[in-house]
Amino acid sequence: MPKLIAIIAGVGPGTGSAVARRFAQAYPVVLLARSQQSLDPVTREIKENGGSAISIPTDVTSASGMTATMDQVKAHFGSDISIAAAVYNVASKFVRKPFLEQSSEEFLGSLEPSIKGAFNFAQATLPFMLDAKEAQYPPTLIFTGATAALKGGSGLSGFAMSKFGIRAMSQSLAREFGPKGVHVSHAIIDGIIDTEKTRGYSQDIADSKIDPEWIAESYWFLHTQPRTSFTHELDLRPYSETW
Amino acid sequence: MPKLIAIIAGVGPGTGSAVARRFAQAYPVVLLARSQQSLDPVTREIKENGGSAISIPTDVTSASGMTATMDQVKAHFGSDISIAAAVYNVASKFVRKPFLEQSSEEFLGSLEPSIKGAFNFAQATLPFMLDAKEAQYPPTLIFTGATAALKGGSGLSGFAMSKFGIRAMSQSLAREFGPKGVHVSHAIIDGIIDTEKTRGYSQDIADSKIDPEWIAESYWFLHTQPRTSFTHELDLRPYSETW
Amino acid sequence: MPKLIAIIAGVGPGTGSAVARRFAQAYPVVLLARSQQSLDPVTREIKENGGSAISIPTDVTSASGMTATMDQVKAHFGSDISIAAAVYNVASKFVRKPFLEQSSEEFLGSLEPSIKGAFNFAQATLPFMLDAKEAQYPPTLIFTGATAALKGGSGLSGFAMSKFGIRAMSQSLAREFGPKGVHVSHAIIDGIIDTEKTRGYSQDIADSKIDPEWIAESYWFLHTQPRTSFTHELDLRPYSETW
Amino acid sequence: MPKLIAIIAGVGPGTGSAVARRFAQAYPVVLLARSQQSLDPVTREIKENGGSAISIPTDVTSASGMTATMDQVKAHFGSDISIAAAVYNVASKFVRKPFLEQSSEEFLGSLEPSIKGAFNFAQATLPFMLDAKEAQYPPTLIFTGATAALKGGSGLSGFAMSKFGIRAMSQSLAREFGPKGVHVSHAIIDGIIDTEKTRGYSQDIADSKIDPEWIAESYWFLHTQPRTSFTHELDLRPYSETW
Repeated sequence: MPKLIAIIAGVGPGTGSAVARRFAQAYPVVLLARSQQSLDPVTREIKENGGSAISIPTDVTSASGMTATMDQVKAHFGSDISIAAAVYNVASKFVRKPFLEQSSEEFLGSLEPSIKGAFNFAQATLPFMLDAKEAQYPPTLIFTGATAALKGGSGLSGFAMSKFGIRAMSQSLAREFGPKGVHVSHAIIDGIIDTEKTRGYSQDIADSKIDPEWIAESYWFLHTQPRTSFTHELDLRPYSETW
Repeated sequence: MPKLIAIIAGVGPGTGSAVARRFAQAYPVVLLARSQQSLDPVTREIKENGGSAISIPTDVTSASGMTATMDQVKAHFGSDISIAAAVYNVASKFVRKPFLEQSSEEFLGSLEPSIKGAFNFAQATLPFMLDAKEAQYPPTLIFTGATAALKGGSGLSGFAMSKFGIRAMSQSLAREFGPKGVHVSHAIIDGIIDTEKTRGYSQDIADSKIDPEWIAESYWFLHTQPRTSFTHELDLRPYSETW
Repeated sequence: MPKLIAIIAGVGPGTGSAVARRFAQAYPVVLLARSQQSLDPVTREIKENGGSAISIPTDVTSASGMTATMDQVKAHFGSDISIAAAVYNVASKFVRKPFLEQSSEEFLGSLEPSIKGAFNFAQATLPFMLDAKEAQYPPTLIFTGATAALKGGSGLSGFAMSKFGIRAMSQSLAREFGPKGVHVSHAIIDGIIDTEKTRGYSQDIADSKIDPEWIAESYWFLHTQPRTSFTHELDLRPYSETW
Repeated sequence: MPKLIAIIAGVGPGTGSAVARRFAQAYPVVLLARSQQSLDPVTREIKENGGSAISIPTDVTSASGMTATMDQVKAHFGSDISIAAAVYNVASKFVRKPFLEQSSEEFLGSLEPSIKGAFNFAQATLPFMLDAKEAQYPPTLIFTGATAALKGGSGLSGFAMSKFGIRAMSQSLAREFGPKGVHVSHAIIDGIIDTEKTRGYSQDIADSKIDPEWIAESYWFLHTQPRTSFTHELDLRPYSETW
């Protein structure tokens, strides 16, 4: 059987790292982010805990960049690999700005991760997932989504378009690749994620931010579901969130 | 701390039993169904495996019946109990029939479990969940839903009404009791559940029916989520399902 | 061809009256409400403007009440009638109250109009719609819905259940009776309706309440759509509404 | 008061032409399409019927192209114009193809109309809508959507992404510009539109294709709604459609 690996795109200090650590408990993990600095701490941490991780700075919005990354992956692990789990966690830039003040560059630029990036990532990983069916768990492709996947907001047309778009892709791929045994899922992260950056937010209410470790745990749970019982979509929010 | 128990309404040979077995790994379980016969096999099985279970034949559509049941629960476990998990799995009668051929009795009767039953069950259990907040896992109230919670079908107005209705109640209770630390969830079961009764269906495609054990596992997973990271809704369907 | 009439249930001073006046421009109208007092002013007004209207105090939640009403309709117009348009506008009682403080009677009572009432009304009117296909406009059955048809709110489980339920019925009937040429629609009224009772609300923002005449106009528009181009669902809200 | 005009992008032989003819009954219309040939017949027809129309071949996916078009509009009508209605009807290319066989160019190319095009069109027209508030009808921006705005299908990730995306933009703009008095709407066209090209489809069932004249009529109806009573979304489908 081919060697099973996991690959996570969008590894920053919050969700991406937590997902990487979680899946590293079971698989060698490939970690992608734009900058090596984002990747270093979690890569080191995984290795220190006895896991296996390689980090490859990658611009997923570039098709050739993503191809080069997969070449590196094969150079590292050998070409007889299968992807047990692929997680697309690349953030869409959150821009809240009056629509008429947005430049074309700003608007279109904010869509690149969710459109080009998601397309490149799915195209690069799915071929390695189709033959992972004899593995313990069905191969799993997970997209991180947001509230804005369900509801457009004032001043948020670009952000909403990118989140609606990721959801559209996730549904389409689930309907195409589900019958081939690949589990495609979409998680609606509805609330502030608890990271370094958000430390100062919502401090007055205890536990009012989403724990990235539990986003990771939820993704791992999705991964373990057998093909009789796939979840396509789940939401995650703090108990205190108004929705 | 009060004694933690789990309570499951709608224990038949499929999902209900699987959920009962799963939660019995952690808590004494109270099993409800209309008939003692439905309850006996799983109650016995749980006890044989070292778990603790009591079964109480109950018509959940009767407010007084549900009250009497809770009295029995307190007589059995003492009044210092908390409900760690309550699962409402009572089936809405599936009637597909031309609308104009449905009698008022048929139509309204098919709604009793989802309306009166869900109301009685939630009212009887929530008071015992509000003080279970110091437990390891937040108290959890789960409703079993179906595809028909999202889409009304021809000849299925009563069934759809009951499933839409359960979803409405689940959302309302989640918004009311979430901030009080109670985790309310709704599972959309989209496909045929693999039970004795459905043995003959979909036999040509392997694994094309939902495994009740994995419905149970998914409910258990929901139960373990901390209050930072509650899932309100997830779907469950076989990889081969058209949706 | 049979005589075409329109029938409106839930005729109070707001939407119901406006709908009655609008459809009375084209058809003799049958107006239903619990009390004769609600019916009198609009019935008189329609007649004064040259229209034809009869009012029949009816408890639509009673199957026999609804049958008796249809008997009166036939006694009045003769039995060779067809229903060109039927509008179900009976309000679900809006109760916002902590769930655990709701009595069973309160909860279930608030559901009667949306469940029994809608069922009785649809069963009584649809048989007279199936043969109205040669009329200028396809026979149309419209349900008035609300925001709560899409989203359950804290303390609103009964109200949400009734609005989700009406939507479920509307979708099911649309899928069953659409192919038979009956146009079934559901309108999501999202905002405060401008009536006597709401005169004092939202006075600081001009035009911030929904004009019942335009609910009526929208229903009339739905009625005029040919069977090539049916709208099943539309929303209606003031420009100033946050949603 | 400024001169009121209507502008329609995506004028082909079906919906676009029908919408153009409908709005030409009330306003001088500006018709946009990639090729002059698409524009000629309907422009001529409108003029022959006493309407006023100018056609400007425009690639709406080009920001500078759209700007140049607006310059031409101002050169033609003078700069004191307001846009009473703007309709974005540019088709997303319908590509159903296995995901892994789609090239990056194909995938991204199919998204251009819905992303760049919709952005350019909305940015070019909204500034001329903000001051049309004293007109008889509130200024109206309508996007033509599709079933794929609600549901991603196998092999349709690009198409779904573009339709979900248009819906996201429409919702965001509605929430931003609604309070400024601009009516933004999204129409879900669910079914085959009856055009030259689709003449051969669904011939066995009478009236089973959507009439473009009635799409136009529905858009016109949306336009006439006062700001007390805006519809943001409606669907349109033939009575015979399975949904």
